[in-house]
Amino acid sequence: MTNTKVGNATNANFPVDDDGVVYHLGVARDGLAPRVLTVGDYGRAEKLRDKLLDANTKVTTTQHRGFHIHTGTYKGVRVSIVSIGMGTPMMDFLVREGRFVGVGPMAIVRYGTCGSLRDVPVGSLAIAKDCVLIRRNPDHWHPAAAAAGDVKPYDISLPWEGDSELISKLTDAFKTEIPDRKVIVGTNATADSFYSSQGRQDSNFDDHNQDLIDQILKRYPEASTLEMESFQLYHMAARSIAVPIKAAAATIILANRIDNTFLDNDTKVKLEVEGGRACLEALIKIDL
Amino acid sequence: MTNTKVGNATNANFPVDDDGVVYHLGVARDGLAPRVLTVGDYGRAEKLRDKLLDANTKVTTTQHRGFHIHTGTYKGVRVSIVSIGMGTPMMDFLVREGRFVGVGPMAIVRYGTCGSLRDVPVGSLAIAKDCVLIRRNPDHWHPAAAAAGDVKPYDISLPWEGDSELISKLTDAFKTEIPDRKVIVGTNATADSFYSSQGRQDSNFDDHNQDLIDQILKRYPEASTLEMESFQLYHMAARSIAVPIKAAAATIILANRIDNTFLDNDTKVKLEVEGGRACLEALIKIDL
Repeated sequence: MTNTKVGNATNANFPVDDDGVVYHLGVARDGLAPRVLTVGDYGRAEKLRDKLLDANTKVTTTQHRGFHIHTGTYKGVRVSIVSIGMGTPMMDFLVREGRFVGVGPMAIVRYGTCGSLRDVPVGSLAIAKDCVLIRRNPDHWHPAAAAAGDVKPYDISLPWEGDSELISKLTDAFKTEIPDRKVIVGTNATADSFYSSQGRQDSNFDDHNQDLIDQILKRYPEASTLEMESFQLYHMAARSIAVPIKAAAATIILANRIDNTFLDNDTKVKLEVEGGRACLEALIKIDL
Repeated sequence: MTNTKVGNATNANFPVDDDGVVYHLGVARDGLAPRVLTVGDYGRAEKLRDKLLDANTKVTTTQHRGFHIHTGTYKGVRVSIVSIGMGTPMMDFLVREGRFVGVGPMAIVRYGTCGSLRDVPVGSLAIAKDCVLIRRNPDHWHPAAAAAGDVKPYDISLPWEGDSELISKLTDAFKTEIPDRKVIVGTNATADSFYSSQGRQDSNFDDHNQDLIDQILKRYPEASTLEMESFQLYHMAARSIAVPIKAAAATIILANRIDNTFLDNDTKVKLEVEGGRACLEALIKIDL
């Protein structure tokens, strides 16, 4: 398919073109199924479309501005598989514009990759019962910060929970679809950087983050994973006041931040498809 | 070109594979030129490569994880044109991993699109002398927030400046290359959402942002533009303690938030190329 070209928009508050196409997602009303599986990696979304959606139902409706939307049916139920790239702003676009074009109640499951803060091997799977947000506070480094008082380099937010029923169905589906893998359920910490606000040490920058992981674990002993998107899904779903959004998030543990190991690519590819199937199972079983 | 496939990484702190390829940008040492022009839109980067880089020097070295890197020469000087998608986390990847694979001092110019807070027409151009960051603080909405005291819904940061010499060269280049357009120099406000933290009104969510633009203008009367990436470039360039990074940022004013107008697509396309040429002119004139 060719890229969707969004035409001229006419409203700076919420840009939509004459065909009702939202500016970033590139789809119009009902251009997203009410049941959405979202991943970060563009290749992963294509793989899941090719391997999991019912034959002759698959259509890629947009590849625009970093959002690729593939819609079809899974066991006869309409679903969209959406890759969004990385970062909370990209998840924000999906939830905002997805809600704008969505029809009726929605369920969104994120399936991504993460680093682990627990003593579980890479290649295990994690489900977020809730998420906290770790944000770098740039004022800490500013020459005027002294005047502003003691500004901490990183802010750790209060937790937001996902939808308990969807999380329960997702946990069951993971255990059924991938019985040979460990599945942990805990708190996810979503960070606004892969580096500084996840406690990675980088001698090129002065990040003041040596004790950040300890701080996170002290405040949230159930913190299990670090990644870059899930918090925004849980928080925005909870703030959807007009029409309900049920949210759940799971991740492949790609890196272990305790023993500094990284999952091999072949195992990751295998888990992408097996876990993707589990997410679709949960999505078609939830009542909207 | 086919997508770069990054192989097995072995270090969870800073994932790099056996060939020295960084995990997200998908390039190894010196895989990025010391002079970088970065844009958000993938199509814009390809257009600038095709129209502006010297013939027979163009190579697309990676399209991976939302980063597309095109390297070649402009008037004989090696430059990279990099599209990064949207959001501060994506800019953070570019600066972090770009610095990791970069050789020696670097200059990075961002050329993007923005909304305007000033009474200038859409299709004008803006250059950021400094940037502030607008972050949504989710604790404001949390049931436990009352216990935590008065938590504001949005945090507005202190300003970080770009490189004055590069900004000066960029301003000159814009006036020379696009003499028929208004060019304004002011403060950019980078937001962690296109919606809530830019003061857009969305009845699907309770954003508590009705007076946010007024607050920004009250604190920073020179605030001219709203977008999603430039702050991270200026802040991280300023915190690059090992090797210097000179940073500057310019934007096409796509939306006017005062009179609620939106630029037509044809004019945007024309300004993308003219402004891109101005950015490359500034990049090759700066001493590293």
